[in-house]
This record gives sequence, C-alpha cells and structure tokens, in this order.
Amino acid sequence: MTNPYQPTANAYEFPLLIKQLLNRCCSTAQNQEIIYADKKRMAYSDFFVRIHQLANVLAGLNLHKEDVVAVMDWDSHRFLECYFAIPMSQYVLQTVNVRLSPDKVLYTLNHAKPKVLLVNSEFAPLVKDYQFENSSIEHIIWLDDNGVSADNVFGVNQNRVVGDYETLIEAASDTFEFQDFDENTIATTFYTSGTTGNPKGVFFSHRQLVLHTLAEAASLGVLPQKQGLVLGDVYMPMTPMFHVMAWGFPYTATMLGLKQVYPGRYAPDSMLKLIAEEKVSITHCVPTILQMLLKQAQSDGKTFDGLKMIIGGSRLTEGLAKTALQAGIEVYTGYGMSETAPLISLTEFKSDDPKMSLDDDVKRRCMTGKPVLMVDAQIWREDGSVQPQDGVQTGELVLRAPWLTQSYFKNADAGQELWEGGYMHTQDIALIQADGTLKITDRLKDVIKSGGEWISSLEIETILSLHPSVADVSVIGVRDEQWGERPLAVIVLKPDFKDTKAADIKAIALQAVEKGLIAKYGVPEQFLFVDDLPKTSVGKHDKKVMRELYASQTEI
Amino acid sequence: MTNPYQPTANAYEFPLLIKQLLNRCCSTAQNQEIIYADKKRMAYSDFFVRIHQLANVLAGLNLHKEDVVAVMDWDSHRFLECYFAIPMSQYVLQTVNVRLSPDKVLYTLNHAKPKVLLVNSEFAPLVKDYQFENSSIEHIIWLDDNGVSADNVFGVNQNRVVGDYETLIEAASDTFEFQDFDENTIATTFYTSGTTGNPKGVFFSHRQLVLHTLAEAASLGVLPQKQGLVLGDVYMPMTPMFHVMAWGFPYTATMLGLKQVYPGRYAPDSMLKLIAEEKVSITHCVPTILQMLLKQAQSDGKTFDGLKMIIGGSRLTEGLAKTALQAGIEVYTGYGMSETAPLISLTEFKSDDPKMSLDDDVKRRCMTGKPVLMVDAQIWREDGSVQPQDGVQTGELVLRAPWLTQSYFKNADAGQELWEGGYMHTQDIALIQADGTLKITDRLKDVIKSGGEWISSLEIETILSLHPSVADVSVIGVRDEQWGERPLAVIVLKPDFKDTKAADIKAIALQAVEKGLIAKYGVPEQFLFVDDLPKTSVGKHDKKVMRELYASQTEI
Repeated sequence: MTNPYQPTANAYEFPLLIKQLLNRCCSTAQNQEIIYADKKRMAYSDFFVRIHQLANVLAGLNLHKEDVVAVMDWDSHRFLECYFAIPMSQYVLQTVNVRLSPDKVLYTLNHAKPKVLLVNSEFAPLVKDYQFENSSIEHIIWLDDNGVSADNVFGVNQNRVVGDYETLIEAASDTFEFQDFDENTIATTFYTSGTTGNPKGVFFSHRQLVLHTLAEAASLGVLPQKQGLVLGDVYMPMTPMFHVMAWGFPYTATMLGLKQVYPGRYAPDSMLKLIAEEKVSITHCVPTILQMLLKQAQSDGKTFDGLKMIIGGSRLTEGLAKTALQAGIEVYTGYGMSETAPLISLTEFKSDDPKMSLDDDVKRRCMTGKPVLMVDAQIWREDGSVQPQDGVQTGELVLRAPWLTQSYFKNADAGQELWEGGYMHTQDIALIQADGTLKITDRLKDVIKSGGEWISSLEIETILSLHPSVADVSVIGVRDEQWGERPLAVIVLKPDFKDTKAADIKAIALQAVEKGLIAKYGVPEQFLFVDDLPKTSVGKHDKKVMRELYASQTEI
Repeated sequence: MTNPYQPTANAYEFPLLIKQLLNRCCSTAQNQEIIYADKKRMAYSDFFVRIHQLANVLAGLNLHKEDVVAVMDWDSHRFLECYFAIPMSQYVLQTVNVRLSPDKVLYTLNHAKPKVLLVNSEFAPLVKDYQFENSSIEHIIWLDDNGVSADNVFGVNQNRVVGDYETLIEAASDTFEFQDFDENTIATTFYTSGTTGNPKGVFFSHRQLVLHTLAEAASLGVLPQKQGLVLGDVYMPMTPMFHVMAWGFPYTATMLGLKQVYPGRYAPDSMLKLIAEEKVSITHCVPTILQMLLKQAQSDGKTFDGLKMIIGGSRLTEGLAKTALQAGIEVYTGYGMSETAPLISLTEFKSDDPKMSLDDDVKRRCMTGKPVLMVDAQIWREDGSVQPQDGVQTGELVLRAPWLTQSYFKNADAGQELWEGGYMHTQDIALIQADGTLKITDRLKDVIKSGGEWISSLEIETILSLHPSVADVSVIGVRDEQWGERPLAVIVLKPDFKDTKAADIKAIALQAVEKGLIAKYGVPEQFLFVDDLPKTSVGKHDKKVMRELYASQTEI
C-alpha cells in the first residue's frame, strides 16, 4: 500500500541542526550587541559574518566530517563563534575543561583526539610541553587578548600553528554555505571528572542541543517576568563555557537574539562592573561564584537590581539564598549534570503563587525544583520499581529527556551502566513531593563538589594512602560556607606512627599537585585521626555514617 | 570504522511523541483544573485516567495502526482527550470542520476515510442521512450534553453505534500502556477550504506537533508577562478545536499544566461569563469573534482585566485593535495557516521596548509580527530570488519550519506546487522590515492582474473602508476583455447611509490616487451594494463565493 501521507519530493524535512537556531535572530537581531568584557563590542550582523569566516578558516585545514576541534578559552565572543561555526561545519566541538589538573587536561586531549586546537595564550603553559608530534593535533589556532605572540611557544611543533584567530578570521571569505546533514550528527563533546578513574567523555547531537535550547527557552520563558527569561533580557554567563556548554544558555540567548556579555576570565570586580554597565539581567553560576560576587558587592557598597540568577553545580543553601535575595538578586535553583546537557529541573514560580513568607520562599528556591518541559523524572528503588510521589520515599533519581548523552565516549561499559534499565541514572538520591518538586537528599557516588568543581574522594584517598604512616583513609565532603563542600580526610594511623601530624600527610597531597596529578583545590585542609573507620556490612567504608559522625566535629 | 559515539544499547532515544508532552504535567499538575463550560469540572488526574480509558475504548474496535478516527464536537474536554488518546494510540485524529457546508463535511469524511466517527448529537443532522453503508465508517461514538439518545438516529446503520462516549469511558479500564513508535507517524489531519475546488487535507506528524508545541510555548513564553504566556495563566480557546488544532494551544496549555476552560458552542454571553468567572487570562480568536465579544461586553457594561488575546485568521484592523485595548484586552497578531500547524509569526514585545504612542502601539499589534523561533521566512520574487529586508520590496512569503504539512493528503500535484523550490508557498504577498517584522500586504490569490499590473485588493479595501458610509467592503477581480481583470468593489453600507452613490465612494479612491497612495489603475469602475458579504466557515470574506456570485452580474 502506498503511504497516503507521502511527503512531496520537494518538501523540506527540517533536520534539527544548530544552524536553525539562528533562523529568527538572523532576521530580527542584526543590530543587537555581543560584548566581550572590555575588549570587544560587535553586532549580531558581525557575529553572523564571523561564523562564516571561521567556517572558511576551518575549511582550509583539510578536515573530515566529525573530526574533533578543541577549544581552550575564557568565556568570549570567540567561544560563542566556535559554538556555532564548528558544529555547523559538521565537526565536533570539544570544550576543554581548563580547570582540571594539567595531566587530566592532556588526558582529555589524548582521548578525544582533536585535529585542531584553539588555545588562548593564557593557557599555553598547560600545553606547551605537550607532545604534539605524538598526538592527533595537526593544527593550532592562537587566541590572544594580551599581545602575546605564538612565536617560539611550541618548539618543534611550531609548524602546527596556523595563525592568530583574529588575523585568520579577518583574512577569510565571509561566504560559506552551511550544508544540511543528519540531525543525529554529534555536535559537542567534553569530559566530566567522575568519582573514579579518568574523566569520562559525554557527547550531544545537533538534535539534542536544539531540543535542549527550545525546552530551556520555553521552561524559563513561561516563568513570571521577575524570574523568567524575557525578550529584552541581557545575558551573561558566570559558568564557564567549557562546562556543559555554559548550561546551554549561549545557544538559548542567541536563538532569542538577546544582548550577550561574555566576561572573559572570572574576576568578581570586572563581572560586577559588567553587570552594572551592560545592564545584565540574567545569569547563572555555582554558589561559590555567587559568594564571591556578594562579597565584592558588599565591599563596594553595591546591590543588584533584580538580577535573575540560576544556581546549579552544587546545592544553594538557604543562608546564601537569603543573602542574595536581600542584595537584590532573584536567585533560584537549576539542576542538571554533564550527562544531561544539562537542564533537568528548575524552581517553579507562577503568576498566581500564593503570598508566602520569606522563609518559605527561600526554601523553595533551594530545592531541586520541578522537571522542565519534556523531562520524565522518576525515583527508583534499588530493584528498579518506581517510588510514589509522596515527598517521603527516596530512591535514585533516573531520567529520560530528549538531550541526555547516549553513552560515554569510547567507554561502552560505563555507558551501559549509565543507562541501566532504559533510564539514565543520576546516582543522586531524591524524593518527589506531591506537587512534582524534586529534592536531592544524597549522592550515591562519592564526590565532593567544591566551588563548582568535582573532587574525587577516591583519588585523594589513593594519594594519601601512599603516605607511610596511613593505615586507612576515607575522604568525605563537609559543608563549607565559601566552597559549598570541602574534603575532610579521616585517617587511621599505623600503630608505629601515632605522632604523625596533619601537615606531614598534607605534604604528599601537595606533591601530587606539583606533579599535576590532582588540582590544587583537591588538597584537604582538614584531617581527622580516628581509631577505626565505620564500615558497611560488606566491609566498605560507610561514608554516609562518616558524614553524620564527623561533619559537625570539623566545623570547630 | 566503528562509530565512537555509538549510543549504548539500553539508552532511550526519546522519539518526539505527543505522549511526551505529558511528562511534566503528569508530575506537576495533578490537581489543576480542566473545565467544560458549565457542564464539567475535572482535575488533570481525571484527565490522565480518561485518556487511558478512551484508549481502551478505541482498542476494542479492532483498528489498525494509522487508521483515521474523526471527531465532530464543540470545544470540549472530550475533544482534548481525543487530541491525546487518538494519536497516542497510533491512530490519526481527523478534526472535522463542522462549519463547512453539509456536502463539504461529507466530502472530507469520504476523502479521509475514517474508521470511527465521534459525533456530538448536535451535529447529527449533518450526518444522519450519510450513507454509512457505502463509507469507511465502521463505528460511531455518540457525544451528548443534552440527554439526546442515539437510538433510531442512524436508521439501517444503527448497528455501527458503539455507544455513548461517557458511558464507554466509565466502563473502560484505566490501564493502558501507550507504546513508543516512529515520531514521523501522522497524528492529525484536517481540511482547509482553499480558494478553489474541494477542501484539501493537510497532515502533521507527532514530531511536528511536539516541535510546534515547544516553539509556541517558548515564543509566547519569552514575551513580557503582560502579553506572553506564563505559568499561572488560565487558557480558553475561542478558535474551534477543529481549526488547526485550535492553533496548537490545547497541546501547549496541557504541556504547561495550565488551568483550561473549554467553552462548548461559541456564544458571546457564555464566553464572557466563563472569562470572568474562571479568570481566563489568555485566549485567541478571529476578528469576528473579538467583535462579537466586544459588542456583548459593551451591552453588559463590562471590561476585560488585561485578557491576553492573539488574533489570527484574518487581519486585525487598527480600529478594532484600539477598541479592544480600550476595553482592557491585550490584543495582538499571530499569523499562520492550516498548512503551517499554524504558528509562524507573532507581534513582538520586549521588556525594554521604548515608550510608544497609542497609535504606534496599535500599528505594531496589527502587523504580521516577527517569525517565531525556528521559522525561516523569506520574501521571494517571482523568479525565486530573495528580496532584501528593506521594508519596501514585496514578494511571496515562503517558509521553512519544523511543522509544515509535507504535502496535501492524496493530492500530490497540489503538494508539489505548495513546496515549489523547497520552500512552502503561502500565496501571501509580504515585505520584511529591517527589524524582521513581516507585513502581509496582499494575498496572491486576491491580487488583481490588470493590464499586466498588480492591484492589491487589500489596499483598495483599506482605502474604501475609510469612507464614512462603508460598513464592510471586499474588492475582487472580474474578467475584463480589455484589461484581463478589473477590480469590483462589493460594499455593505451603514444603515444611515443607504443612499450613498458609487461616485461618492469612488471619490475617496481618486483622492488616494492624487495623494500618490495608489496607482490610477487601482480605482474600481464597478461598485456593487449588497446587504451582507458572504463569509467562510471561519468568518473570512469568502471571495471565492463572491467571484461566483457577482462576477457575471457585473458584466451586464
């Protein structure tokens, strides 16, 4: 039987490609501004031209479809251009997490195997001794704001340097025809430092990012104007663009044709200045950045005029939320993770919300929020059965959404585990209230979230355990006002080493930093010596019990 | 080479299916209300149960995948249930336009070949003499609000009656597992009465409707709260649910978990009552309905408290917009057509709009607006080349969007013409301003070709409508031996101006020529005075009928 709904041969099927996000703003936002700190102001019309120029620069490098192009940069207009031009040219954008320890950064480059590296001169120390000759990287493009030349930086690999980004762009033709292709083509990849072992790569297709963008715009758009996204907003990220595509906001803001401000390297004073001068009205960050910003504002005697701020990465505490509200920031919670592209839930506000006390208002802003549009969120018992929405019974939060990583990059086993039972496992323990509000109560995995960065407790344990005096060690996260969480090392000393001091053990962690094995923020400041570590029935360290036992002690 | 981005076998691919629109509201809106006029109030939790029950009723009818299920009903909770349960069961929902002439209604049934007909007792006269025995319809489900039984209604076809909707629902199990299937499966079909010949069927897939819903929510969501969509809104349609899925709003409102009010048969007094009592805050309709509503409100001495209203179907005139604004209605324009699912453009409002005069504000609300998210709108010259965005040069508005009908149902030739050159042809003549605002200046079908020149009938109508004696006017092209076509003005005079002569009205057109507003050849020589203008089922001037009625008369 023939299909009566046969599309006509010349009908346009409309694949969901990143280039389609530009359809509206190409026509409506030509004169809107994009700003890079105090360094550059340009119109969307320039941005469109520069995307085409960048595509031509890349086209000159003899790449193949789905080749990886890696970027190491601060939050800049250049990074935004890469967000579009690289995937629109059918290459895969790798956003390199420059905050990882140097060896981890190189690990991610070795693993993703980019053909091209765009690197900001300020990150040159991270890669200047990299053995490019043994790597996948054939071309280096130099990004610079400080008049630093790429000359003689790369030694024997100097011949890989194609040139300076700005010079290349200026010389390139502004005519480029972005082709249509399969919407399931991968657009971006980046690495998440999990609880154990090496960072794992996640990846997202054009279709996934387009759907994430639409759902983000809709979910934030339907919030009341005071908290939600509205045409006329001015957007600035305060989550790095290498961190889950700055939570998808650069795509959303561009699709809507909003004025955008990219702050470069994060410094509280310059961010505060940009917020005031450019009239930034919506942003997002981790609690640590919010704290820095509040501190700076307080010392400058400034407040915020209803700045909308979505907090993610780690838990927004009620104290911090209250302080932020009092300083004029409309602060609330978004939840997600690298594997989820990332938006999963948001605090809900409605135009008909009943009047509530400040305390109740603060409380709801600090919960995990309600699932955003299209997200199917369930709480599973250990046997995979579903918990009721009763606000009491907890289980693992598992997800379906149109934008979840479909595996880990070249790590099928971890991917299969992630998707056990056909839902994506967050490893977060949560409950759902009757009204649909999620509340994360605990983490299955043992990671410490400090200043928005993951610290693998296992990794720190491994290093500390190498000290000759240590019999057993467990590292847990304890609440910290400034960083959200900080690692606490709970240590059992060997009988012959009972007079070992914390500083002795700390020294080995500092050595690991020097060797580039761990980041500096991974070194614990707090050490606790005990006779025995609590264990679970199967003999594993019982960290849940340890958190209860030791968390408060250490606050002395 | 193996694909390094291979999805893991148990990853969920997330097809874009109508059932996924329910993910969020299933968890967050269980207690929210859905109301059917003064006849029924229920919670979303009931609605979810009833969808499952309806699916079980349909499952008992031995249908096959993609069989058509036709619905003839007023705007009701039942229709909303059909919007979900029918496509979610992998059948195709045909929304029957009951305002067409009886023979056209039957034509659409004969053409779409539904297996099941759900018919409201009030529409029984339309189908009671239908030869079901020679038709595709095997099952009839009876919808009734008036205590009218289906007994003896269908004569020899009485055996096709499965039962009463409400009784069947109540008896059905509430357990049904909605399966996943290909997102390109067709979900809905309906007929558009074109300018010539029989109605043509358009059709939309699950994927298309999901994307339309997301883009509609986002595009309306990011407008300022005064005009846009916000959580807390109360939604009521005033465009029939058989008409392009009530512009997609029932899907959007359900996805967001809004309170919804379905008004049944449209009567100005009961609609006005529902708006006031249920605190309806957002709706949409054609100008004719707005006029009726304003008249009723005026006679009742009532105003509207900022009711948001999107006007489509035909042009919102400045006079009407001003009256509506003054009555407290936040009125503005949406543009689309049956072939476009339908949303294409909306009046834009921004939180940082400069202060503007009432006249300027009214003017922008009456323009065609800016393309909504994801829409690629172009203005083509006759040779298919693209006009610049200069606010001057006109051409045919052509479109790409993720939700355009991919052909006409069983009419490949018309489908091919619709998609000539890979863009969908609207047959509307338009221009685009530098800021992206579209302005429809005419319909290709309404353009009069005189002596090789185009005469815009809309333009002539606007000018003639300014004459104080004119209540309504339509300008059509009539055959002319010398010029090919010439304009004929068909005029309804206001009651107090019944002795106005053609020459009086012609004088205003001649003034417009003197002022350089129109060309001399645009002035009609022929004027016809009538008591009423023929209208289409959706309240538009029916120029097709006028051409048939008046073209020959005037040749005398």
